[in-house]
Amino acid sequence: MAVELINIGTELVLGHVINTNASFLSQRLGMVGQEVAFQVTVGDNEIRLITVLNQALGRSNIIILTGGLGPTKDDITKNVLSKVLNRELVLDKKCFEKIKSHFYERKLTPPPGIQDQALIFRGAKVILNRFGTAPGQILEDRGTIIIILPGVPREMKTMVDKSVIPYLREKFSRGEVIRSKFLKVFGIGESTMEDLIKDIIIQGMNPEVGTVCTDKELIIRLTSKADSEKEAASLLDPLEARIRKRLGNYIFGQEEETMEIVVGALLTLKRKTISIAESCTGGAIADLLTDIAGSSVYFDRGIVSYSNRAKRELLGISENLLKTKGAVSYEVGRAMAKNVRKISKTDLGLSITGIAGPGGATQDKPIGFAFIGLDDGKDTVVNEYNFTGNRKIIKDKMTCTALDMVRRYLCGYSLK
Amino acid sequence: MAVELINIGTELVLGHVINTNASFLSQRLGMVGQEVAFQVTVGDNEIRLITVLNQALGRSNIIILTGGLGPTKDDITKNVLSKVLNRELVLDKKCFEKIKSHFYERKLTPPPGIQDQALIFRGAKVILNRFGTAPGQILEDRGTIIIILPGVPREMKTMVDKSVIPYLREKFSRGEVIRSKFLKVFGIGESTMEDLIKDIIIQGMNPEVGTVCTDKELIIRLTSKADSEKEAASLLDPLEARIRKRLGNYIFGQEEETMEIVVGALLTLKRKTISIAESCTGGAIADLLTDIAGSSVYFDRGIVSYSNRAKRELLGISENLLKTKGAVSYEVGRAMAKNVRKISKTDLGLSITGIAGPGGATQDKPIGFAFIGLDDGKDTVVNEYNFTGNRKIIKDKMTCTALDMVRRYLCGYSLK
Repeated sequence: MAVELINIGTELVLGHVINTNASFLSQRLGMVGQEVAFQVTVGDNEIRLITVLNQALGRSNIIILTGGLGPTKDDITKNVLSKVLNRELVLDKKCFEKIKSHFYERKLTPPPGIQDQALIFRGAKVILNRFGTAPGQILEDRGTIIIILPGVPREMKTMVDKSVIPYLREKFSRGEVIRSKFLKVFGIGESTMEDLIKDIIIQGMNPEVGTVCTDKELIIRLTSKADSEKEAASLLDPLEARIRKRLGNYIFGQEEETMEIVVGALLTLKRKTISIAESCTGGAIADLLTDIAGSSVYFDRGIVSYSNRAKRELLGISENLLKTKGAVSYEVGRAMAKNVRKISKTDLGLSITGIAGPGGATQDKPIGFAFIGLDDGKDTVVNEYNFTGNRKIIKDKMTCTALDMVRRYLCGYSLK
Repeated sequence: MAVELINIGTELVLGHVINTNASFLSQRLGMVGQEVAFQVTVGDNEIRLITVLNQALGRSNIIILTGGLGPTKDDITKNVLSKVLNRELVLDKKCFEKIKSHFYERKLTPPPGIQDQALIFRGAKVILNRFGTAPGQILEDRGTIIIILPGVPREMKTMVDKSVIPYLREKFSRGEVIRSKFLKVFGIGESTMEDLIKDIIIQGMNPEVGTVCTDKELIIRLTSKADSEKEAASLLDPLEARIRKRLGNYIFGQEEETMEIVVGALLTLKRKTISIAESCTGGAIADLLTDIAGSSVYFDRGIVSYSNRAKRELLGISENLLKTKGAVSYEVGRAMAKNVRKISKTDLGLSITGIAGPGGATQDKPIGFAFIGLDDGKDTVVNEYNFTGNRKIIKDKMTCTALDMVRRYLCGYSLK
């Protein structure tokens, strides 16, 4: 069974917008065992869209379309699909009321032609739009499932999570069960990780183990297929156990857990509070940690001491230390962690000082050079790092490494 | 003439990596008048790749392939293409020497099978790889131009700019010139903007004006086609002037400029320094402003006063004010801006206090409610906002709105 994505929008083929919908959909579909085989992007162009739709209908059993559902004359997805399938669009009154109320609630007059957005394929299941006006639709046509979604990421994503995934999960629950598991790894390089588990990586087999490397983390993906959940789990669980044994505490999370989610949960669980003193990361660590709802339980304050004067005035780093050792030094990293904790009266103090680049580097202290410190009132650990990449990548790596240090501390793992 | 991109990689169709190569290639091709008609992504799977290649050969005159050129057995692009075109691959000695020297320079032994990376289609133009080992190729086959590039963005991008674009420019130099311009808009809603310029928005014509809406900004795209650069500009320039007149200072930038780039440049240009006191954004404003290289010239410090205690201790906000008015109030927003500027001795003090949600809301102060303040030592302006979306979207909108307030101040525009 082939799954195909068709993302429709002239802004996509012209490269004005990066297509993040495709990767989101592929990830979500993968989680219910539906692996995408083809992903096609095409502009709002009737002839080309017809070509692409006919191709997809000829080779795929699940087709997901995004984009081209707006009220303007550019938006042709439904009309073109109606021609290709030779299937009628009918006005859905409930949907039309919902669209009108979207405008009335905002004290706006519905624009002319808005009725077309409530046109639904006869027999289709309607997915209401929580954030916008264009509804989604799920349609079964001669054995093919066709899912039509808006192109606006926020609208599309909510529909996928609330309606499309539950629909597919139920639809295919009687058939083969596909079980997937993602293990998130941080703190070792890709090649080291692959070396550690090279005899467990199996591709094109059942179960399957593969790895993915992103700028922020390494992901190990385990997949098994079987006739029952139980059987699928029995294929996967021993593999997972072997991988966990090999990689130990380099595995920081699973499934959709990010480093900030894991650290936020650990701080909450262990009832520890934290304060952060950042230099080169410019607030990125505090920003990430406060992306988590409820972070006010553990996060007290962050000090972005970018200038040396700020380091002196806000963190009490001595002029002498800054002069003799330099702002990017073990000693300043250590004092920042100790002092931010003391000033804030939190359980933990986290610090970073380094060179994000492209300026500021010296022969001894190249771009990406940094010290990350963690103080708990008894001990202070300061580690030295050499990160590589451009300014943004270096900031991201620094941020994730600092949070990983907090994770390792809270779990009682070695910090070196 | 149709242009088609084929991005090859299992990590792409599984959604583990966002496909940024497609938008980069589309943009660059657009600049030499080659608009992409189809963009197809497929995994490292022989049968599917054959399908996709045959389709492309049947409908497109320029085909650009990325990915699948590595040394592992997963990398099948060249072999599959060789079968489909029935065209031989031959060892390019110069290329092989280059690949070997890539390893020798790094004191590494070339891995077995590396010779395959130097296999080039007979008659193809080789594009050497500055950053990696896999060379690119430009091939003409029965009237179709086929360009083969590595999937690693840095390697691919350099090859495109240094070799592919000059090749296409020369090849099609007799054809038309396409000129594009992007105007970035902030501070008004999409529908308000479209209302203001609705008579200027023209689609499917020459010149063309369209709009794109992202979570952070609105983009107006102007495109013209003509026989010469001069003529293309003469079609575009009057349109741009009309749009600028209508939208005035809601236009904050153009082309690839982001809000933080614009604000960073203005602070540098006007020689103003800034300090930031953030509550609900948790460091995101400081983080964004320090994404810009050279930000230490204008950014002194950021205080992320998340708890009330932090607001008292770090910013001298009185217990009484916090109690009587609440942390999310005009008065606290005002005091935060004034005090952070005074404490930091910077030209400007920027503050934000608000409710990012999902917790913390009251009947009077819903999720997304916020005050943003800006103090210059003489005056303090504090604006009230009601942002909508989830926690992350609200944080993003707050951050961009705060930076826009700094932009408006530095340009002498109204802050209300």
